[in-house]
This record gives sequence, structure tokens and C-alpha cells, in this order.
Amino acid sequence: MQTPWEYRYAHRTQKMGSSVIRELLKLTEQPDIISFAGGLPAPEVFPVKEFRQACNYVLEHFGPQALQYSTTEGYRPLREMIARHTARYSVAVTADNIMITSGSQQALDFIGRLFINRGDYIVVESPTYLGALQAWNAYGAQYIPVRSDENGMIVDELEAALRIGPKFIYVLPNFQNPSGSTLTLERRKKLVELADKYGVPIVEDDPYGQLRYEGDHIPSVVMLDSEYRGPNGSHYSGNVIYLSTFSKLLAPGLRLAWVIAPPEVIRKLVMTKQAADLHTSSFNQYVAYEVAKGGFLDEHVKVIRATYKERRDVMIEMMEEMFPDGVRWTKPQGGMFLWGILPEGMDSAEVLKRAIEKKVAFVPGEAFHPNGGGKNTMRINFSYSSPDTIREGITRLGMTLRELISEKV
Amino acid sequence: MQTPWEYRYAHRTQKMGSSVIRELLKLTEQPDIISFAGGLPAPEVFPVKEFRQACNYVLEHFGPQALQYSTTEGYRPLREMIARHTARYSVAVTADNIMITSGSQQALDFIGRLFINRGDYIVVESPTYLGALQAWNAYGAQYIPVRSDENGMIVDELEAALRIGPKFIYVLPNFQNPSGSTLTLERRKKLVELADKYGVPIVEDDPYGQLRYEGDHIPSVVMLDSEYRGPNGSHYSGNVIYLSTFSKLLAPGLRLAWVIAPPEVIRKLVMTKQAADLHTSSFNQYVAYEVAKGGFLDEHVKVIRATYKERRDVMIEMMEEMFPDGVRWTKPQGGMFLWGILPEGMDSAEVLKRAIEKKVAFVPGEAFHPNGGGKNTMRINFSYSSPDTIREGITRLGMTLRELISEKV
Repeated sequence: MQTPWEYRYAHRTQKMGSSVIRELLKLTEQPDIISFAGGLPAPEVFPVKEFRQACNYVLEHFGPQALQYSTTEGYRPLREMIARHTARYSVAVTADNIMITSGSQQALDFIGRLFINRGDYIVVESPTYLGALQAWNAYGAQYIPVRSDENGMIVDELEAALRIGPKFIYVLPNFQNPSGSTLTLERRKKLVELADKYGVPIVEDDPYGQLRYEGDHIPSVVMLDSEYRGPNGSHYSGNVIYLSTFSKLLAPGLRLAWVIAPPEVIRKLVMTKQAADLHTSSFNQYVAYEVAKGGFLDEHVKVIRATYKERRDVMIEMMEEMFPDGVRWTKPQGGMFLWGILPEGMDSAEVLKRAIEKKVAFVPGEAFHPNGGGKNTMRINFSYSSPDTIREGITRLGMTLRELISEKV
Repeated sequence: MQTPWEYRYAHRTQKMGSSVIRELLKLTEQPDIISFAGGLPAPEVFPVKEFRQACNYVLEHFGPQALQYSTTEGYRPLREMIARHTARYSVAVTADNIMITSGSQQALDFIGRLFINRGDYIVVESPTYLGALQAWNAYGAQYIPVRSDENGMIVDELEAALRIGPKFIYVLPNFQNPSGSTLTLERRKKLVELADKYGVPIVEDDPYGQLRYEGDHIPSVVMLDSEYRGPNGSHYSGNVIYLSTFSKLLAPGLRLAWVIAPPEVIRKLVMTKQAADLHTSSFNQYVAYEVAKGGFLDEHVKVIRATYKERRDVMIEMMEEMFPDGVRWTKPQGGMFLWGILPEGMDSAEVLKRAIEKKVAFVPGEAFHPNGGGKNTMRINFSYSSPDTIREGITRLGMTLRELISEKV
């Protein structure tokens, strides 16, 4: 159907388009495919019973308020709870440092709106989170990729990037999406030092920080930055905008996340959100607060950790058994993804095509590299599928890889 | 606190700022003020019991799905229900014409993103919905205001506007926010004719269409446009993007609205939403579907109509009694707002200052006029306050107006 809208798109829209990968990934939605492509939490760990209790409690005691329009910055008791939680794990902030967003994706979009002019440079890890690239491409961002390895961003290569004059540094220090890597304490400290040296602020995206299955918790970048700027290092420095979410701790279907920023940035985020969607669902904020307020999350996260650790271990065990020589993979200390590395010259998009025929899927790694590269890498999710499904899926993927490698020889 | 973010805002952000009106309206949030300033539904009519039943049902039967990530376009049964509803009231569309948004404000924002280049002209009624201006200002829109009266946009003045070459026409035909006016059938037909003559598409924003308290339903612009383009006029023409919402029929705290557009526009809206917030809360979509699916809304809207009609009638009765000569007001056939018109030369922002001293508030009309004007107008909400509160509030507002007018003489 030709409509008068067809020639009326804005410049920013004309660059949007379906990608080859997007089309391939649509195939992975067929019900008989074992998909390690998504980034979904395990639905088995959603606290359905607690949600029912909370919905009933909220509607019995706060029905009219919870169903009404509410403030753009978010439900104050929820923001205060997040402030207490942040003070416990990291640095002292108040509710005035916090805005609730409809998922972390919205926080990324708003950061783009607030800060990115067409042509601005953003320092990112390579590979990095695809959703951030999608959000910021709309504002005409350009990227300075800094390579990363199993220990996160290779900070020795950061200084050259900072000398280009980027708007900010974007980093996912814990169990990164897509690579599963975790930035070491030494590298975090170096990152903070270099950012300070060049006066460049940081956006720290931390959706998975609580999902650690082994090793010790590493202090967040926001905390290290505040300490570095001392003398009162337990107080938020304002140099790092920090993002986290309830999507992995409670349930993504609520679309609840938060951003921590200086009050002046929060004020501008609030104006942005007012024009974008007025506010995040009041009902969901009341319900999440009710579920979380009594310390439930501390217990619940243990269940999630145990579930995902088992799935990660099963996946790695199966890879050791089924994957051919020459294929490597990381062992992430937490999160939801591991990273597969094929022999140089192999193309994971070709692997995906063959894998789909065998009814198994993953995401080819190239798309996560803002300036290209990584054709031989793959993101593999271990949180969503049951251990048995993981066994079957990795068996199929191993067969696919063995076939392709033997054809090549 | 000075932070490195301060000099890093994008151009589009630097124009954002707190307005005088915004600051004044903050004062109206004091609990002892009777506020006719907001645009809130009456919380007494929220179907709390039905929500409880629906939450329990959804969590019992669909817990894992309802709490999981879901598709960007929205929950298919909900979209199919909206398609059936639209076919009943207006034109034949399918779920492929529909995307769920987080409130209509988000649909307005996305329309701006998709279509507005800096400097593009949009034809709007003057006055028009402030949220649309806020959303589109961010994309650098300019406005061609067409004057309106109690019968909506004065379409005789539309042709000159269309010759300027606007991107689209934005119109709220039913019980408009802020003026309460309703576009007559004759004017709707003329609007459709002129839009066709110049090949300019239309965005029809219809949050209040079901909230009619007297008179006959007038066919929507999307329906008239489809008929005009016949021969198969019962099918959606694609020329009108139509917006509506559950905020006024169920509850705004859910943040659930929808947009009807040609499938190609929907595809681009989906890509936009994917980068903006991934999807609207799956849980809320399941719950709204459960509440609405059995025809509940048809019964519930009768309760809303009866409640709001009484409030409108009480407000007008009190205005007749308490407002001084020279002050006029409209009698809207539906919706949530009526429009006060002060004698020429009076400034409603000055009235608001004095009114706040007397603990009553409204919104001065000037802000709704994209290119200025309307200093002597005021938007007055009648849906939120109880009849007794309306009596007291209009008494206070009448005293304020009498004082100011007598001081002037």
C-alpha cells in the first residue's frame, strides 16, 4: 500500500532498515529451534507467587494511586529503596540522584538524546551492547572502539581513544553483553584514572552485577571514581552515570530500570521523559516495591545464581565434549552469555545459517563490533534454556561446527 | 555540584528549560489546593476489583510469559482486540496496523522521530495539546497554527496552511485538550477533502472519543478519510495515523495506548521502539486484555460518562452562579476539560497567581498556543475533582476573578 507517509520520513529514519542478522534471527523464533540467541532470563525463576501477593496488596491498599498518572521521576519509595541499596553496595546517593526508566534501554536512549550531537564520538568496548549502538545511532553517534579480552576493555588502548575527544566512555564492567567478560579491578582503576586525566565522564551499564557465580565482587566504576576523586570518596562524584535494572533480578516484563546521575542531569532526564512517555507505569513501580521492600531480592538472587551457574556449567561441559578443536569459548564468572571464538577466517553468520537447519541458534558476533570485525565470534546465551535443552542444543551446534570445519579442510 | 556533564549536552538539550508555568504549576501540587490544572481521570472510577481479578488470573495462567520480555509491537491478542474494536467503530484494520505504545505520549514522540526534520512544518490547531508540542519541539518542528472555535479547527483557514507544505496535520477532533471543542462533521469532511487536495496526511489523536456525555457520535477522521478515498471506504486508507489510549477508559497508571498506521509505518515504529524501550510492559498488556476482553469496557465507560457528566454539569452551574460578567466558558460535549475565556487584555497567568493564594488552580491557556496568543484563556479540568470540591473550587475561582476585574475597573 502506497501512502503519503512514504516520502515524509525524516533523515534519521531513512537510515533505519532491516539487517540481514535481524532477518536470520526471525527464523530462530520458530518453536522447534533451540535458541541461544536471545538474552532472556529463565522464566522458571520469576517470583510469580510474590507478584500475585504484591498485586493484591497494592490494589487493596493503593489501588487508586497505583492506577493513576504519577510523577515522571518515579515512585519515591522505590527510588529511596534503590538509593539505600546503592549506598550499601557502592556510593552514597539519594532519591534525587535517581530516575526510574522503562527498562535500561530507555535510559540509554535518553542519554543519547541529552548528550549526543550528530558526529559525536563515544568510546565503547568492542564488542559492546548492541542496544546501546541502536539507541545512539539514531542521534548520529560515531564510535571509538577499544578492544577487549576476557578481562574486559584493554585499558592500555584507552588513552589514545580519549585523546580524540569523546563525549563519554560507555562500559559494561560485569559479565558483559555480549562477551561475558568482566573488567578487572586493576583495569577499572586505570579506566577511572584515565577518564579523570582527560576529563571524560563515564556511563556504566550494570544489568548483571548481582549475577556472579564465582569469584569476588569487584567494586563498581562509580564507586572507584568517587574514591579516586576523594577526599569524601563514599559520596557519589557525579562523574559516572550508572544504569541498572530489575529485569534480571525480578522480571523484564515489568520494564523497570533506573539511572543514577547528578541531580542536574536527572532534572534534564525528567524533562526528556516527560516529552517521551510522561512516566513509567505507576502500577508496576508499586508492585516491584512491594515485592522487593522486605529484603526479598537478597534471597531471590541466590536462586537465580544457582540456576544460571548450573546452566553455564552444563553448557561449558558440553562444549568441551562436543565442540571441535580450534573453537574456543570464554568461561564468564556471571551474567547470561558466553562468547565463542571460531578459527580465524570462519564466518559465524555462515555457521548460523547451517545451525538453523539443525534447529539451533545463537547471535553472530560481528554486529556487536561498532566498526566491524569479529566475524568469527558468537554470543551464546545460557540463562534461558533448561540444562537438558542446553545439552541437546550444544550437541547440535557441535555437529554443525564439526561439519563446517571438516568441509573447509 | 559541577560535573563534567555540564558542558556536554547536545544542542537539542540546551533549549530545554523550566518554564514559568511549570514552576507555577508545581505550587498547585500542595495538598490544600483544589487543582483543576491536571488532566487526571477520577480515581473513583478505576476498576480496581477487575484489575485484581485480572492480575490473579494472568499470574495464575500466564505468569512466566507475562513477566518475560515480549515482542516490540505488543501482545497480539490485545492488538487483535483493538483491531476488532476499531472495525466496529470506524474502519477495517488488522493487528498488523497496530502497535502498542507506553501511553499516547510515546506515540507522539515516535511520530516526531520518524517524520520530523529540523524546520519541518506541522499544521496544528491553536490551541493544541501541549504534550505534542513538547514531543515535537525536541525534533525541531515548526508549527502552522490554524485557529479554532467551539466547533474545532476553523477549516476555512486550513487551505492557506496546507499551501505552505507541512509534513502532516495534527488534530484532536473529539473534546479537545485543552479547549474541549469538538470538530463538526462538516468540518471533518472539509479537513479530509483539503488534506487530499494537497496530499498531506493526518495524525488524529483521539484519547477521549468514547467520553461523550450528550449529542451523537461523529465519525472519526480516519473513517471519513477512508470513505472519501473509496471505492472500498470501509477499509483503512493509510492516510491517517490514528492514536488512542486505555488511559481514560481503564487507568493511566498502566501506560497503555495504541497507534493505527499503514503496515510500513508500523514496521518503522517497531524499529524505533526497539531502540527506545524494547517493548511496553508485557504484564500490563496481559492484564489490560484480561480486564477488557469480555466486553467490560462497554459497561465501564457508562460509569465514567455518568461520573464526568455530573462533574461537568456541576462546574458549569457553579460558573453561571459565581463567575463575573465578561468571563465566558465552553460547554464541551465530552472529555475532561472546559475552556475559560477572560475579557480581552486580562492575563490568565496573573489570575493563576492570585488563584493559588486562594488555594485553587487551573492552567493558563497561552502555553497551548504554539505561536503565542490566548493570554486571556484558561484550561479547567472537571474530571478529577468530586462535585463538592468543584463547588468549592469554582467559588474560590469566581472570587478571584471578581476581585481582579473590580481592581481593574
